[in-house]
Amino acid sequence: MATRILLISCTDQKGLVSTVTGCLHQRDLNIVSNWEFVESDKGRFFMRTEVAGTLDASDLLRELRERLPTGADVRIAEDRKKRILIFATKEPHCLGDLLVRCAFNELNAEILGVISNHNTLGEMVQRFGLPFHHVSHDGLTREAHEAALLDVVATYDADYLVLAKFMRILTPGFVSHFRNRMINIHHSFLPAFMGANPYRQAYERGVKLIGATGHFVNESLDEGPIIAQDVAVVGHQNSARQMAKAGRNVETIVLARALELVFNDRVFVSDNKTVIFD
Amino acid sequence: MATRILLISCTDQKGLVSTVTGCLHQRDLNIVSNWEFVESDKGRFFMRTEVAGTLDASDLLRELRERLPTGADVRIAEDRKKRILIFATKEPHCLGDLLVRCAFNELNAEILGVISNHNTLGEMVQRFGLPFHHVSHDGLTREAHEAALLDVVATYDADYLVLAKFMRILTPGFVSHFRNRMINIHHSFLPAFMGANPYRQAYERGVKLIGATGHFVNESLDEGPIIAQDVAVVGHQNSARQMAKAGRNVETIVLARALELVFNDRVFVSDNKTVIFD
Amino acid sequence: MATRILLISCTDQKGLVSTVTGCLHQRDLNIVSNWEFVESDKGRFFMRTEVAGTLDASDLLRELRERLPTGADVRIAEDRKKRILIFATKEPHCLGDLLVRCAFNELNAEILGVISNHNTLGEMVQRFGLPFHHVSHDGLTREAHEAALLDVVATYDADYLVLAKFMRILTPGFVSHFRNRMINIHHSFLPAFMGANPYRQAYERGVKLIGATGHFVNESLDEGPIIAQDVAVVGHQNSARQMAKAGRNVETIVLARALELVFNDRVFVSDNKTVIFD
Amino acid sequence: MATRILLISCTDQKGLVSTVTGCLHQRDLNIVSNWEFVESDKGRFFMRTEVAGTLDASDLLRELRERLPTGADVRIAEDRKKRILIFATKEPHCLGDLLVRCAFNELNAEILGVISNHNTLGEMVQRFGLPFHHVSHDGLTREAHEAALLDVVATYDADYLVLAKFMRILTPGFVSHFRNRMINIHHSFLPAFMGANPYRQAYERGVKLIGATGHFVNESLDEGPIIAQDVAVVGHQNSARQMAKAGRNVETIVLARALELVFNDRVFVSDNKTVIFD
Repeated sequence: MATRILLISCTDQKGLVSTVTGCLHQRDLNIVSNWEFVESDKGRFFMRTEVAGTLDASDLLRELRERLPTGADVRIAEDRKKRILIFATKEPHCLGDLLVRCAFNELNAEILGVISNHNTLGEMVQRFGLPFHHVSHDGLTREAHEAALLDVVATYDADYLVLAKFMRILTPGFVSHFRNRMINIHHSFLPAFMGANPYRQAYERGVKLIGATGHFVNESLDEGPIIAQDVAVVGHQNSARQMAKAGRNVETIVLARALELVFNDRVFVSDNKTVIFD
Repeated sequence: MATRILLISCTDQKGLVSTVTGCLHQRDLNIVSNWEFVESDKGRFFMRTEVAGTLDASDLLRELRERLPTGADVRIAEDRKKRILIFATKEPHCLGDLLVRCAFNELNAEILGVISNHNTLGEMVQRFGLPFHHVSHDGLTREAHEAALLDVVATYDADYLVLAKFMRILTPGFVSHFRNRMINIHHSFLPAFMGANPYRQAYERGVKLIGATGHFVNESLDEGPIIAQDVAVVGHQNSARQMAKAGRNVETIVLARALELVFNDRVFVSDNKTVIFD
Repeated sequence: MATRILLISCTDQKGLVSTVTGCLHQRDLNIVSNWEFVESDKGRFFMRTEVAGTLDASDLLRELRERLPTGADVRIAEDRKKRILIFATKEPHCLGDLLVRCAFNELNAEILGVISNHNTLGEMVQRFGLPFHHVSHDGLTREAHEAALLDVVATYDADYLVLAKFMRILTPGFVSHFRNRMINIHHSFLPAFMGANPYRQAYERGVKLIGATGHFVNESLDEGPIIAQDVAVVGHQNSARQMAKAGRNVETIVLARALELVFNDRVFVSDNKTVIFD
Repeated sequence: MATRILLISCTDQKGLVSTVTGCLHQRDLNIVSNWEFVESDKGRFFMRTEVAGTLDASDLLRELRERLPTGADVRIAEDRKKRILIFATKEPHCLGDLLVRCAFNELNAEILGVISNHNTLGEMVQRFGLPFHHVSHDGLTREAHEAALLDVVATYDADYLVLAKFMRILTPGFVSHFRNRMINIHHSFLPAFMGANPYRQAYERGVKLIGATGHFVNESLDEGPIIAQDVAVVGHQNSARQMAKAGRNVETIVLARALELVFNDRVFVSDNKTVIFD
């Protein structure tokens, strides 16, 4: 049974669920699953509804936009895989995992291509029959490098950019092109150990858990809305190098988890937080 | 802001959410949170709605029962703590944890009393100013012992019976008095290691994780609907005795977790499974 | 079979394990379990050996101190429960858990008494037949309050001080009396969310995991050697108040875990880190 | 600093650690890390020692074999990656993960080739430049098929066989060729849900955790020594198909974890259990 996903976020008021489900019922659409949530401190309403039945999307959207509060964000998720571009640098663990998952339809996404500031990962990407773009930052200003990256991105029609251990800091100007459409894996349990060398920091501090955070990228580095987090147990016997290895496993799992949530239209962004229906 | 919980389970059909939320909207009740779920293989619909506003419970229930499918189970959770009786034997870990939680309002429950087939735990219970009933099974048939237990239970008006390491097997006859109202903590990750001496079994088998299961008790021993499960890491260095100790920690946590879900009206029972809105 | 624990930390050099195990073998002592670890960046050696057999402690210690590098710290753990004093404020969850565990021999410790700057928890402590000391900070300077606390502590012969949600910051002067003998439970996954209101901070940041950290207290607030850490899953649906509740569960578990390690002589402190043999 | 791993298992007796470490000290070898464990119910001693220094392996082995109890198993791990053959069927998740890990030196192993009873995974294997052998079972008796598999295996000099979702049951005859050298990933938290369709079973039972088990294969199906286990949280909203998907993630992680332990010489097999030094 084919189903479609209806996504609504708007100012909260009484009767919203009744209005939306009334519209669906009128059209003889059956609700297969339904989540609502009210962020009460902000007075903001979120709803994700999976419906079965024959759907005239533009007609439904028109009526909902009329009847919901002004400024409501109402969407029906497209009935296809997400189109993604992956940015990477030299580390293969996250990229390799995504290549395998997409090759075998484990993630609701199609990889359009991979962009890297190094050449290291090109051979692996090409083994999967995908375009690899080496956009070196050598000898370029940050702005010139970002312009070169944007040139490559512009040749694709991507829904999302995935930073799979892309080790360059992106400027707010670059980020602003992809608001809520760029996902990063951060090498720590944010907000601990922000910045460089997190595993060295973790080792020095003698922590007993190593974490990773999948998040949307916004203008403030390491501060975007968090999508998924997880941890792994470490101990005194782990060197900084071994902590980094444990960390790579967690990073791989957390990025895949964050992407699965986003690519199945389960994540709303509300300022610097996410609302996740899962 | 005081809120009330509306709980519905019924045969699935189109328009149910619309009907219910329409009724709430008409009465000027605001939906604070809302979960629905359709068990599609059984065609069964579940809904838990938290509403704010002034509520005429009997009027709302009457209308909903009229408009929902025949046989619908519609309830509004009572606006008070659950009243519980605890059954225990000799082990203190689960009972002690519940005594502390209830004494400090960490669980939405009031302990009416504790019943045990041994005397070991009486002193601890009395320290908390609660009635303790020693109902020994010595020299009694199983039926006579259960009759004696029922006599004590009958003197209370309990919503739930909690088996906090009660080491007697209860007959289907006894269980039938408390359908979906009796919760047990099982000393394993069910369905593994059913029956006696699970930690000895786990040790012999060399498992790397020890689990526990909180479940409703039904007529088939160890087969009731599962509410919560968790595991702890163990290893070759753990003797059967140490595995049992690790197990006690998990049991304590899992029972508290299961009870928190049930006592906050987050659990529906559907045949041998639970639907949990959390 | 009674066993004793031998604990050694010293400068690393070749042949240490051979020397120690030779001494044990000569005395016809059998090694039941044995852990060694070399912190290679500091050149420091740690060893924990559990031996069975009849042991002349002073003779063994004398020979080991002669044969091991100058300055070696060599101890045999006393063959009794640890004697502990608990500091608390108003929150009952950690204290209650420790009272139950100790009452039923689940922790290798005897609670000598409980000290609090509030009166809230006195009734619970007295239920367990233990001394409760209310040492209010009202109207006192920090120094005067700490002097009053020290006066009470001085009336006991405690091995360890346990800060079970003691919400006063202790001065370096106070801390210096209990070097590596004072254990605190911190309400976050350190080093994230240091300082006050960690759950409000966690809520504002939208994290997906809530953590807690058990650590030795040293002169730098929140910076002492970490013993144990754990996390619990939270989500957008959890208010700051619910995150605090989830946090209390993790705090309880992590403190009990940290104490179990320390009280079973499994923890060495090495500068700002721990070496844990478990 | 290059190090070598010394592995000993033998009947327990007093003085073993002293004897071994004495031999190492005499040869001016430095112990970098050291684990011992006595399985007291079997009177069996296990020791794993990592040493630094110039090592004459045959001389050291000769002396140790002379001085340790008769029948002692004494080995020095070879100073190279493990050579492995992977068996798979149609599912790509475990195989893909291993291909990526080995391609980037994340696992201490070299994949010699992949053998499958189906053709599905051939293209992926060849992308990594590795031999793929399609050994169909179509029209063959179990014995004939196993003979064909053995023929392929015989052309390689493999240390270990890895069953990465190989969905054929192997006969005791086949298994006996690879005692403690064949590792399987089982689709459940053993010993629950043994046999076919574990995720359907898990769904029917309404469990809240899905597990996986990495284990050595022995003559009794699903009963070999357990190396690693883990679980993932599931709920009522997960269909059997979604549980299977969650399960694939856990399987991937657990198999990689089990192999990492084995390939770094951290696992001893003791009858139907493992002793793991990590």
